[in-house]
Amino acid sequence: MKGIIVQELEERIQKEGIVKPGNVLKVDAFLNHQCDCALFDAMGAAWAQHFQNTQINKILTIESSGIGIACVAARHFGNIPVVFAKKAQSINLDGDQYVSTVFSFTKQREFPVIVSRKYLSADDRVLILDDFLANGKALQGLIDICNHAGATVAGIGIAIEKGFQGGGDALREAGYDLDSLAIVDAMDPSDGSITFRQA
Amino acid sequence: MKGIIVQELEERIQKEGIVKPGNVLKVDAFLNHQCDCALFDAMGAAWAQHFQNTQINKILTIESSGIGIACVAARHFGNIPVVFAKKAQSINLDGDQYVSTVFSFTKQREFPVIVSRKYLSADDRVLILDDFLANGKALQGLIDICNHAGATVAGIGIAIEKGFQGGGDALREAGYDLDSLAIVDAMDPSDGSITFRQA
Repeated sequence: MKGIIVQELEERIQKEGIVKPGNVLKVDAFLNHQCDCALFDAMGAAWAQHFQNTQINKILTIESSGIGIACVAARHFGNIPVVFAKKAQSINLDGDQYVSTVFSFTKQREFPVIVSRKYLSADDRVLILDDFLANGKALQGLIDICNHAGATVAGIGIAIEKGFQGGGDALREAGYDLDSLAIVDAMDPSDGSITFRQA
Repeated sequence: MKGIIVQELEERIQKEGIVKPGNVLKVDAFLNHQCDCALFDAMGAAWAQHFQNTQINKILTIESSGIGIACVAARHFGNIPVVFAKKAQSINLDGDQYVSTVFSFTKQREFPVIVSRKYLSADDRVLILDDFLANGKALQGLIDICNHAGATVAGIGIAIEKGFQGGGDALREAGYDLDSLAIVDAMDPSDGSITFRQA
């Protein structure tokens, strides 16, 4: 089943993705502005298969683009709680928080990563889900948050990894169980070509 | 079925919601920081029932808290596309955009509401979904965007309406088909009490 999802996702990226200068891959047609929730559901099924022997009791993601993917995927993990980290303080956030700081590639600025202490603890075995993995900065913020909480990062699921930016391979070398559904190893804004890593 | 969802949602708000001074109702335990996606799924089923005779081909929401609700609900509408409006410019947004400006009650500042012209057009019959409706400012931003696009606002689904802030009743008077699952008519930070509008 997973092979079919990867193939479908790669075809969507080839067909609808737009390669822009500066290592930007726009997939706002189906992933992070307009959302194809049938695709998200299939992605969730693929991650559930990959992590089927991993004890997971919570899904952690980060606003905004990870939320839809994580909430749709949760169904395949028995609707365990989904917690999304916030990137800004709000009057809806109060009390004790875990806070990390990361640099956003897409927004070109630093932002905080905030999770209430109420929703993450040392008892949690966490699956981190997100739409993109490039240099791994945003993911490192979520891993930091789990470390602050004493929670275990049981796995990481990513829709699209930009393999040439190195974040994914660094996480694999560090021992994380990282399941990136599509891994882009090269892309060229001059002709729009996209090359995927072979399984 | 809808009655059961409303009852469950009201019970969750009573049990886990926290009333704070300044008309703030915190429901981050299940709605907008930690997410109960089984509840989101039931909410989606309730909206699908309410809007079953309404032609809808697209769901529109706004980052961040609306996204999970909208993406989970989409399954009950045949997985039609979900578009989430963005609150900030990003290098992932380019080209022609619809832009409106709204004031955030929870963040206490103005922010833009941005949707790419590629994902909303005069052919669209839109269901707007969001977690909260208070004074209606954020919703008005989404309605403005639909008006800019020439799209039809076929319906509006809200998880929790703070009825005493008037935004919902103004939208009903303006003729919108607004389905708020739980309507809070009064809440008191001194004793935490919450009073729901009777159907």
